[in-house]
Amino acid sequence: MPYQLSNNFRLFSLNSNRKLVEEMTEILGCKMGICSVTQFSDGEIQIHIEESVRGCEVFVVQSTSYPVNDNILELLIMIDALKRASAGVINVVIPYYAYGRQDRKARSREPITAKLVANLLESAGANRILTMDLHTPQLQGFFDIPVEHLIGVPVLAQYFMEKGLEDMVIVAPHNGSIGRTRKLANTLNAPIALIDKRKPEEGGQATYDVIGNVEGKNAIIIDDLIDTGTTITFAAKALAEHGAKAIYAGCTHAVLTGNSIEKIEQSPIKELVVTNTIEQPEEKQLEKITCLSVAPLLVEAIDRIHSEKAVSPLFE
Amino acid sequence: MPYQLSNNFRLFSLNSNRKLVEEMTEILGCKMGICSVTQFSDGEIQIHIEESVRGCEVFVVQSTSYPVNDNILELLIMIDALKRASAGVINVVIPYYAYGRQDRKARSREPITAKLVANLLESAGANRILTMDLHTPQLQGFFDIPVEHLIGVPVLAQYFMEKGLEDMVIVAPHNGSIGRTRKLANTLNAPIALIDKRKPEEGGQATYDVIGNVEGKNAIIIDDLIDTGTTITFAAKALAEHGAKAIYAGCTHAVLTGNSIEKIEQSPIKELVVTNTIEQPEEKQLEKITCLSVAPLLVEAIDRIHSEKAVSPLFE
Amino acid sequence: MPYQLSNNFRLFSLNSNRKLVEEMTEILGCKMGICSVTQFSDGEIQIHIEESVRGCEVFVVQSTSYPVNDNILELLIMIDALKRASAGVINVVIPYYAYGRQDRKARSREPITAKLVANLLESAGANRILTMDLHTPQLQGFFDIPVEHLIGVPVLAQYFMEKGLEDMVIVAPHNGSIGRTRKLANTLNAPIALIDKRKPEEGGQATYDVIGNVEGKNAIIIDDLIDTGTTITFAAKALAEHGAKAIYAGCTHAVLTGNSIEKIEQSPIKELVVTNTIEQPEEKQLEKITCLSVAPLLVEAIDRIHSEKAVSPLFE
Amino acid sequence: MPYQLSNNFRLFSLNSNRKLVEEMTEILGCKMGICSVTQFSDGEIQIHIEESVRGCEVFVVQSTSYPVNDNILELLIMIDALKRASAGVINVVIPYYAYGRQDRKARSREPITAKLVANLLESAGANRILTMDLHTPQLQGFFDIPVEHLIGVPVLAQYFMEKGLEDMVIVAPHNGSIGRTRKLANTLNAPIALIDKRKPEEGGQATYDVIGNVEGKNAIIIDDLIDTGTTITFAAKALAEHGAKAIYAGCTHAVLTGNSIEKIEQSPIKELVVTNTIEQPEEKQLEKITCLSVAPLLVEAIDRIHSEKAVSPLFE
Amino acid sequence: MPYQLSNNFRLFSLNSNRKLVEEMTEILGCKMGICSVTQFSDGEIQIHIEESVRGCEVFVVQSTSYPVNDNILELLIMIDALKRASAGVINVVIPYYAYGRQDRKARSREPITAKLVANLLESAGANRILTMDLHTPQLQGFFDIPVEHLIGVPVLAQYFMEKGLEDMVIVAPHNGSIGRTRKLANTLNAPIALIDKRKPEEGGQATYDVIGNVEGKNAIIIDDLIDTGTTITFAAKALAEHGAKAIYAGCTHAVLTGNSIEKIEQSPIKELVVTNTIEQPEEKQLEKITCLSVAPLLVEAIDRIHSEKAVSPLFE
Amino acid sequence: MPYQLSNNFRLFSLNSNRKLVEEMTEILGCKMGICSVTQFSDGEIQIHIEESVRGCEVFVVQSTSYPVNDNILELLIMIDALKRASAGVINVVIPYYAYGRQDRKARSREPITAKLVANLLESAGANRILTMDLHTPQLQGFFDIPVEHLIGVPVLAQYFMEKGLEDMVIVAPHNGSIGRTRKLANTLNAPIALIDKRKPEEGGQATYDVIGNVEGKNAIIIDDLIDTGTTITFAAKALAEHGAKAIYAGCTHAVLTGNSIEKIEQSPIKELVVTNTIEQPEEKQLEKITCLSVAPLLVEAIDRIHSEKAVSPLFE
Repeated sequence: MPYQLSNNFRLFSLNSNRKLVEEMTEILGCKMGICSVTQFSDGEIQIHIEESVRGCEVFVVQSTSYPVNDNILELLIMIDALKRASAGVINVVIPYYAYGRQDRKARSREPITAKLVANLLESAGANRILTMDLHTPQLQGFFDIPVEHLIGVPVLAQYFMEKGLEDMVIVAPHNGSIGRTRKLANTLNAPIALIDKRKPEEGGQATYDVIGNVEGKNAIIIDDLIDTGTTITFAAKALAEHGAKAIYAGCTHAVLTGNSIEKIEQSPIKELVVTNTIEQPEEKQLEKITCLSVAPLLVEAIDRIHSEKAVSPLFE
Repeated sequence: MPYQLSNNFRLFSLNSNRKLVEEMTEILGCKMGICSVTQFSDGEIQIHIEESVRGCEVFVVQSTSYPVNDNILELLIMIDALKRASAGVINVVIPYYAYGRQDRKARSREPITAKLVANLLESAGANRILTMDLHTPQLQGFFDIPVEHLIGVPVLAQYFMEKGLEDMVIVAPHNGSIGRTRKLANTLNAPIALIDKRKPEEGGQATYDVIGNVEGKNAIIIDDLIDTGTTITFAAKALAEHGAKAIYAGCTHAVLTGNSIEKIEQSPIKELVVTNTIEQPEEKQLEKITCLSVAPLLVEAIDRIHSEKAVSPLFE
Repeated sequence: MPYQLSNNFRLFSLNSNRKLVEEMTEILGCKMGICSVTQFSDGEIQIHIEESVRGCEVFVVQSTSYPVNDNILELLIMIDALKRASAGVINVVIPYYAYGRQDRKARSREPITAKLVANLLESAGANRILTMDLHTPQLQGFFDIPVEHLIGVPVLAQYFMEKGLEDMVIVAPHNGSIGRTRKLANTLNAPIALIDKRKPEEGGQATYDVIGNVEGKNAIIIDDLIDTGTTITFAAKALAEHGAKAIYAGCTHAVLTGNSIEKIEQSPIKELVVTNTIEQPEEKQLEKITCLSVAPLLVEAIDRIHSEKAVSPLFE
Repeated sequence: MPYQLSNNFRLFSLNSNRKLVEEMTEILGCKMGICSVTQFSDGEIQIHIEESVRGCEVFVVQSTSYPVNDNILELLIMIDALKRASAGVINVVIPYYAYGRQDRKARSREPITAKLVANLLESAGANRILTMDLHTPQLQGFFDIPVEHLIGVPVLAQYFMEKGLEDMVIVAPHNGSIGRTRKLANTLNAPIALIDKRKPEEGGQATYDVIGNVEGKNAIIIDDLIDTGTTITFAAKALAEHGAKAIYAGCTHAVLTGNSIEKIEQSPIKELVVTNTIEQPEEKQLEKITCLSVAPLLVEAIDRIHSEKAVSPLFE
Repeated sequence: MPYQLSNNFRLFSLNSNRKLVEEMTEILGCKMGICSVTQFSDGEIQIHIEESVRGCEVFVVQSTSYPVNDNILELLIMIDALKRASAGVINVVIPYYAYGRQDRKARSREPITAKLVANLLESAGANRILTMDLHTPQLQGFFDIPVEHLIGVPVLAQYFMEKGLEDMVIVAPHNGSIGRTRKLANTLNAPIALIDKRKPEEGGQATYDVIGNVEGKNAIIIDDLIDTGTTITFAAKALAEHGAKAIYAGCTHAVLTGNSIEKIEQSPIKELVVTNTIEQPEEKQLEKITCLSVAPLLVEAIDRIHSEKAVSPLFE
Repeated sequence: MPYQLSNNFRLFSLNSNRKLVEEMTEILGCKMGICSVTQFSDGEIQIHIEESVRGCEVFVVQSTSYPVNDNILELLIMIDALKRASAGVINVVIPYYAYGRQDRKARSREPITAKLVANLLESAGANRILTMDLHTPQLQGFFDIPVEHLIGVPVLAQYFMEKGLEDMVIVAPHNGSIGRTRKLANTLNAPIALIDKRKPEEGGQATYDVIGNVEGKNAIIIDDLIDTGTTITFAAKALAEHGAKAIYAGCTHAVLTGNSIEKIEQSPIKELVVTNTIEQPEEKQLEKITCLSVAPLLVEAIDRIHSEKAVSPLFE
């Protein structure tokens, strides 16, 4: 068995993504920590940890995906319960960290909710965060506890590499994704392009320019997350209009709200590659969506944390 | 105009109970602070305060009623926005404070969620709490900021007094409500009784004894909140079986989840008196439910805080 | 030897209750930690820990009984000394936690001293609290560090069970004790009654009604503490007037101030059962007072904490 | 009237030194804040502030003199009450700050109680400290809130100056007082001397050498406080043996415990000048002890704080 | 006089940028706060504030430019002095915030120094930050106190607009500047281009591609800061090679270290427009460098903060 | 090998005093932790820890000597990096702690920088401080984490003892050093004397009196540090004028700024004994300066901390 866990290891799953945690326990060869997490008829969450965690190194897995506020509270309450139950170390595993886009005051008198959530987690008693593809890497600095920040790009890169596409161009669907685009381009040894969205101040429709050469190429749009699907499908349309040969897309977090599934289905995107940081219900699964598992990556990180080995090799 | 508010006074409503806040602004003769509080398709809350609050004394009103976790996050995010917008003082008005029943570890390895929420509010930046009928008065001590704790009993007492019932007995529907019962009994100058619930350890049905004399009397059951309605309707049944003449019930917080409305409709309760700390949708309104407004009480407290007059006269 | 303590285990006693700690070390089979705790002629406390505690798991035992303020300061100063001496974990064992009745603002402009003391303990550097029968269980939430809250009821229940009394009724001497009463009644399989104290608003003497049936029964009054003895002796008198056959009383914390001993001696109470959470001087010992030891219970809890086993079995 | 206090000014006295505060209110021309501060029979302190302090600038006066721990707790509880009662600013006036000598770890595993007390005051909610002659001026740095540190030397210097002594020498009775000695010597334009206490390591009696020339001079011993009186009376004896003409002594804080009064009476000290930072009972008053009042100095400082004028002129 | 400052307004300058503050006081029509800020021969900074700040609203201006660590410590020490001197509100004005590029862990086991500095400022006692063009806007979330974040783009845009260039293209010299580029492009109504730097993994020279069309256009490179000048001069060279007609550059913070001045002089950049957030010594002034003043912008923001008016109009 | 270090032991050196740390690693028989600590051309410090420290007990050695502000920032940034890299315990070894003389408000509106630095270290994440000869021992209380405070006097005493001087007198060069003087005098069994500096208020030159008898004796001046050299060389001159036979001087921290070396060379001091807490460049080395190493003392303390043995024997 590759993973040697000590007796004081505990891995708990909350309600957001049990499938992922099941996969993880299978790889680790351990059983899931027993705790009941229920909601009363008035919406209050009740948690009861059913086995001793005294002095244990605990990992709690919870994506703060939809229903996002319930999932955040569930996580905070679990941390409170663990703290009061004398858990030794509370590692909080957040495959998808919500509210990441509210990371600055874009306008006056807005909150910085991504920081608020970080503060809440620390205030509740979290000792370490393990997460993936924060909306911007600066979010690491919103915490004063250690943050292990895993990157989804290598997982996606591996997949596209094995696909054997030729003549690729990696495309940032908006300004904020250009760093990620450059990183994927480095691995796949490809040039980059950028979709430049302009919104006329006097109102009217936004335009999507393609900056860089995409004609006749296999374009791979890359982003950290897809939410309403508007950005990525407009990007795909623009690429098609500029003569891209085939259009692929990849992202780590498949938020996929509203009619995003429909938009993607109807878009010129040939294949969308996502990961399972967010659990997808049946109705959101399309033939053209490929879902890669991040369970092996998370498990490797957890084992390294637990056995006090460097986590850094996972980034190299 | 009775209320003299200074220029730097701001009163904001979040989404839980706008009707109550509208009533309050009417009494105060002021307009509501302008802010947009919306939810994205992925469930993330977005708040934008649309007018300057720099240096202002702000009151934000939010009951943490259903959907409780959304409402808590909404409140925390609003506080974050106010803090970053340089509000002078952030007064948080919580007519109904949820999670109050999770106020101790009833079993090992449970959270104390009522304390967690108090910590979250302080950590977000609240400067003062104004609330009503906390589940136990000890919850005041969960905060290190000032808490103004208003009591619903006088509001209910006033109503029952005007009703002119004779030969009353005030009934605690369970152990935890006996202090409140004694207080109402003092005002109405009546004796008390207690419903004693016993649950056989070997399982089987709970029994409800009536301790104290209720025969031929107008019984008034009093509690801080009614949630599923089970406790109060069982209490009413026990009172009926013990010969109570008529059965009334009163509570401050009408949580009223599940089929509680149905249970109350079918119970021997003649009239249930509640307040509007929690906004009631149409479908939860019954002819036998009377709803009293706490807006005048809250307004009086807010004015006293704002003009730095003692709040204590409200308790005498 | 049943208890296997590691080398880094240290158990210190401060001045409030050395007898109890001696009993505990005897059961544990360990020796007491060496430290001098003296008071200068100006009343300042001086503490010197005489053996290394570097990296140790330390337990300090101190009831905050009379002289309460000296005992609190003594404890805080000891915690400061331990922290600065690089103790590994500082477990604070408080068999009797004073100021528990000042747990809310009963009137405006009162302190919440029970919370203040909790804050002082955390601020000084306590890592965990082990205590017994807090005045209300909500006091657990006054702390953000783990609190192990032991219950005296089983100790008392065991004693009364062995006594073999028949036809019992368990009596709450005031509203606040009804939860405890129900718990003891469950164990002894007995009904409950309640002493209802009414104080006329226009002044005059308080009256003590008995709610529930006590006639011809063996009544056991139960409370968390007996201080001036007024409440319990008035309760006993009321029970006698209502025809109780014999009157017993039990409490965890024998505060017993003023002329309480005299009152108890002269009351119709046949036997008062207390525990040794507070050390009793000779002059407070009466023939009709039975004192049970909580040393075995505390030792069991300390061992479970020290060896990182669940403490929960002590509650079942 | 020299002092113009605003409406929101409040001055409260706790139990340690009411005479001083009465003197202060007389000078200020204001009345004392109304609050009841009592002790229950079990030693617990109960405080009730009887008038509104909402938004007020409050000054609370309490020397932490004997009974030191009661006085500290009294002060902390008062601060807690003020904080929860929404006081605007809580200024804590501590004419005598106890535990000042426990300001470092003199031996391993000792507390630094002076810092602990500072932390407790901040943790309770103090906003500013006004104090006099801390044992070492470094204690100011134990706080992170502003500390106004008044000096008693000018008060004493003024007295000795008016006395018109000639040929003076200012004497430090031990190493720690040499800075203070130099300061007084500067004002009185006199040389200094030092009592050098040596304790043989092999045990035996300590010897007191006089370093510097005192023969035929009027010696003034100066210290921050006199506690048991041993140091100052041994110093006086050594000065007498070295031919000092007359021996005077001065200190700010007259702690005067044990048989210090007797020792001073029997010593060669001709006159001891103290201040009223600590209230002296009748039995501690000797003909040879002169007591100067610091009320005018404290009042001046309070007024400057209250009216936001610089406090610095008081030091020049 | 346009600016009405209250009596309790104080504006202090530390040593980094006195020229800017002189300009500001001139615009404000006030005099600079008096304080001495000197360095001892051992490098320790000594600060003495020479006028009362009790209860004042203080603004301290300090860019954390070279010598960066001295300037940071100077600022922290000043904040400590202000806090202990009972300043009312401490506004920290940091025209250039250093260490902004260390805003995330780019590799394992790196610090996040930008967050550390934020924590240090809060820990020292800062109440509000006023700054310009943080390296990424997410740095706002590194603080829990209000941050007023001014933007240099409008200042630069205004200048270029008045210049009347035609056929412009706005160029991001690296990935991180693309948001800023888009913003300037919006104002100047121009398309954008991007310099894409690729570094071969096997070593060797980096290549600089131009993505987007620049041929025959007036290119304006935009960045938040210019440090060693490498990035911007390589970008300029790449633009020249791709046929740009004339090359302009703009940035807010002219860090300009090493031989950057030489590089710029020799580069194809026709004009470099900077601001005076960092004070420039004589030797760094070139004919082709134009320096715009941010004093009016800072003054406007300070006045709005001081008079509690919304700062937001400065962004519109 | 005398020192048994566990695998999780790490000892890092920053830039202030690498020679000392090399000596320490040699004694310990371990290798130095690998980390790069560089300064960019703009003065920003960049740190990269090159080996895993996850769960390790780390010791970082840094004197905050000249350039003091760079060295402080370097240390703070290193602590931040260690904390975010999940170091188990961060022990900060500061052989020379700068800013120790700014330990109180000597005048109004001064900072207490020694406390500020203590706060910064705690805020960055330090868990324990190991330091030597703080300017006053009260500085220990500026921290709330454990401080191991080593004393240089025994090292110096040992040296002078071996020298075999007869008829010694130990001299305090100013008031603040008298405690240290008494301590050395105890060990060397010698009398003490004091240099009394008087500065006429009306201006003019300061005078240096010698209090105590030094004629014909071997005088040893003792201080914690020598900075500009003024105090010690004036003291030496005064001793020479009062007939001292030979004049020696000793101090722990050789700050030696400005022309101090010249002053010492020209003074009547025969030999100056210092330690290597501060690294001395070649040009500051004089024949008459003897430098003792504190590496063995620091190593012994580190080993005792690491192996959780009492550090106290080092003081006896």
